[in-house]
Amino acid sequence: MRKKRPTMGDVARLSGVSQTTVSFVINNTPNTNISKKTRAAVLKAVKQLGYTPNAMAIGLRTSQSRVIGLVTDEIATTPFAGKIVQGAQDAAREEQRLLILMNSGKDASVEDEEIDTLLGRQVDGVIFATMRHRIIEPSHLLYQIPAVLLNCRDVDSTLPSVIPDEYLGGYQATEALLQSNHRCIGMINTSENVPASQLREQGFRQALADHGIPLEESMIVYGEDGIAKTGYDGAKVLLSRYERMTALFCFNDRVAMGAYDALRQLHKRIPQDVAVIGFDNYEVISANLHPQLTTMQLPHYEMGRWAVETVLNISKSAAEDRASPPMMLPCPLVLRSSV
Amino acid sequence: MRKKRPTMGDVARLSGVSQTTVSFVINNTPNTNISKKTRAAVLKAVKQLGYTPNAMAIGLRTSQSRVIGLVTDEIATTPFAGKIVQGAQDAAREEQRLLILMNSGKDASVEDEEIDTLLGRQVDGVIFATMRHRIIEPSHLLYQIPAVLLNCRDVDSTLPSVIPDEYLGGYQATEALLQSNHRCIGMINTSENVPASQLREQGFRQALADHGIPLEESMIVYGEDGIAKTGYDGAKVLLSRYERMTALFCFNDRVAMGAYDALRQLHKRIPQDVAVIGFDNYEVISANLHPQLTTMQLPHYEMGRWAVETVLNISKSAAEDRASPPMMLPCPLVLRSSV
Repeated sequence: MRKKRPTMGDVARLSGVSQTTVSFVINNTPNTNISKKTRAAVLKAVKQLGYTPNAMAIGLRTSQSRVIGLVTDEIATTPFAGKIVQGAQDAAREEQRLLILMNSGKDASVEDEEIDTLLGRQVDGVIFATMRHRIIEPSHLLYQIPAVLLNCRDVDSTLPSVIPDEYLGGYQATEALLQSNHRCIGMINTSENVPASQLREQGFRQALADHGIPLEESMIVYGEDGIAKTGYDGAKVLLSRYERMTALFCFNDRVAMGAYDALRQLHKRIPQDVAVIGFDNYEVISANLHPQLTTMQLPHYEMGRWAVETVLNISKSAAEDRASPPMMLPCPLVLRSSV
Repeated sequence: MRKKRPTMGDVARLSGVSQTTVSFVINNTPNTNISKKTRAAVLKAVKQLGYTPNAMAIGLRTSQSRVIGLVTDEIATTPFAGKIVQGAQDAAREEQRLLILMNSGKDASVEDEEIDTLLGRQVDGVIFATMRHRIIEPSHLLYQIPAVLLNCRDVDSTLPSVIPDEYLGGYQATEALLQSNHRCIGMINTSENVPASQLREQGFRQALADHGIPLEESMIVYGEDGIAKTGYDGAKVLLSRYERMTALFCFNDRVAMGAYDALRQLHKRIPQDVAVIGFDNYEVISANLHPQLTTMQLPHYEMGRWAVETVLNISKSAAEDRASPPMMLPCPLVLRSSV
């Protein structure tokens, strides 16, 4: 048997009383009619077992809720939910809060219903998280409670929000290629109207401009979506257009996965003939590709932490103080073997 | 502005009273001293807005907790957590329950502390989920409350549990290869002492035996872990040993991803020269490989649903009725292009 931390239930069993009685004794609850003998038995069991009250449980007794609600739009279909939830959970635990997780499946009426339920539960705050970085119109219910947007923001920044710094990530990915002496660099992007596509490309363009590297428009190709096929098709097009191209900045790791396939078919070695850099650090891909993929890491864990810490601070400040520009967290470079 | 479902807050604003007053009127709460005039104003606003009370909120008022705790061991590092959580959430929602998510990070004392916290919250039940299928020694706290194990079980089945039918999955994966007329089939497994490795291999062996296909022990190779390198090395070894080998059963999709790399280097076409079947249906890999990977799907969503439905039924039955053999859910074949 593994070593167990003694619990209130253990104390109850050893002293032969109910868990409620143990709780009354430990908390010195007034007006409970507990006999001296029972009290002594409980305290003896506490000592004998080395029982210490659960810090979190103590926290819970001192407040009405101590719960934070995390409403997400599509947890099941994305690989990133785990790290967001993990970051939020770790921070909630440190702040002695529990995390209620709800999923709205991108349905605005379900979303409202869920937030309404959380309001009814008097949660300390609500975090509304999207799995893809996007601009949203927040539910009006989020203005009735401390609320933080995670991986999304509203156009006017009327709610605090935390997002990845996609522009800086694109800039730094390009710089990583430039530092390895690449001078003819292509980008395989998606044509989606989303911040990630637009800002990563802006960062790419600016980094080249800042280093005096000329960019032809046909050095950027676009697929419909951030999937492997986009990378496969994109790499084939770029390398047929530019024989001298030695590096590819891929919109994300899945696109890079497809680019790998194309490069193999073209008998190009990675990174000796063509370097590849991805984005997201979606580890199941990036760490399993051959060679392992150098990429920019989305700060999902850190965003989860920031959101919890921020939503708890809001509850202490006035609602009109809420509006602020989005907090942009950097996307660090993860060096592996493809650059 | 998007169309919003009217809330109690909207009713309060329109009728010029507090949300509490609206709640009192709607629920006919006794002894509230609300004037006839106020009551009429609230009911008029309810009618005007078409407000209907939130079904979930009603459920919440009729019980002390209506919360289910989901304790997981490592949500962040696994791609499967999302589907487990989604299945549990969907079922909880249908049963008008909320889901509190906690993560113990494989630390037994943290695990006990979390379950203890949930007990203190008087949750309706606890689901203990592991991200990899394994045999565990459950926390003694799980016996103090309705509890279900998800993707794990205890040796003696003293708690209800739901796991994937790994054996049947291995059997059916092999049958899929046999039905495509493959007769010399290799397996790339891992040497880990876990149910998935052992049972998938048993299914593989039994399917070959049932179809009268001879198996040489050297047709099964083992890597340390279920990663791409295992598949890359394994495929190279198997195809150097058996020139006539035309099909590979890979322990999981990551192993298959590595096998793809090796087959490409060996100039073997998939599936024309060598068919590949994976396991897990980890979609980011299986749907992005080139060609897309045929694989067996782990029933994570279904396990999440089953666990919630079961834990709520336990609360209605006696504790001594709990023990039962694990519920094994099938892993359906997902046909793509690699077989």
